[in-house]
Amino acid sequence: MSSVQFPTPHAAEDAFYRAFAATDLEAMMAVWADDDTVTCVHPDGPRLDGRSAVRRSWQMIFEGATGVRFVLADTRYMHDAELAVHLVHEHIQVQRAAGPQPAVIATNVYRLTKHGWRMVLHHASSADAPQQPAQGSLH
Amino acid sequence: MSSVQFPTPHAAEDAFYRAFAATDLEAMMAVWADDDTVTCVHPDGPRLDGRSAVRRSWQMIFEGATGVRFVLADTRYMHDAELAVHLVHEHIQVQRAAGPQPAVIATNVYRLTKHGWRMVLHHASSADAPQQPAQGSLH
Repeated sequence: MSSVQFPTPHAAEDAFYRAFAATDLEAMMAVWADDDTVTCVHPDGPRLDGRSAVRRSWQMIFEGATGVRFVLADTRYMHDAELAVHLVHEHIQVQRAAGPQPAVIATNVYRLTKHGWRMVLHHASSADAPQQPAQGSLH
Repeated sequence: MSSVQFPTPHAAEDAFYRAFAATDLEAMMAVWADDDTVTCVHPDGPRLDGRSAVRRSWQMIFEGATGVRFVLADTRYMHDAELAVHLVHEHIQVQRAAGPQPAVIATNVYRLTKHGWRMVLHHASSADAPQQPAQGSLH
């Protein structure tokens, strides 16, 4: 899958969410850079460094997952020559879910590699509540 | 405080954690870019866009907080001409805490502005458990 070439960070991001929605592990890993500079943080999860750890996490997530759809909102983009940072709210629509799911906050970073733009970081987190942090809470 | 000039992303990061440890709001806001492209996500918190929301969140966090110290570990840096992404584990040492606190996972993004390098994103999250995400969990 190293022959996949994404000409822009947006193309890589589209492929990331298509692979995620389709729970397609090979398509997912084709979006990530082909080296161990990659890092992934799933909501409430630890930091996973390197392709093996990242691949294993997606494999576990994809097992048993079906019928999801992503709608991205509140996008903020920062682009440089060889590095791009995308902030998105992921609205995940799950079939048979009781109601709308809370949005996941994601920071996605892409790097221009010799194989085109590839993902090097996906940092996702979920908000406990829509309010600001509690007064006096530490970070 | 707009006269503060950080010559490198590392200088800006040092100032960020010094201001955080000292709970110094003005020093903290001097690290952030002087425009509304800034975004901050505190652990388990929502995405806060723009200087007003970011400033308010630090003000609330700093009220009542005392005696913290940061040790950064597991650093990963990606630098481009005008954009830098730093991944760190924040080990926060709190006085009078019963034992070691779990590390906070942070993605810090800096941009080269006309006032030097400034922070444009701080995305922090905490891991519920040191393991991989549960099998079949959705994202």
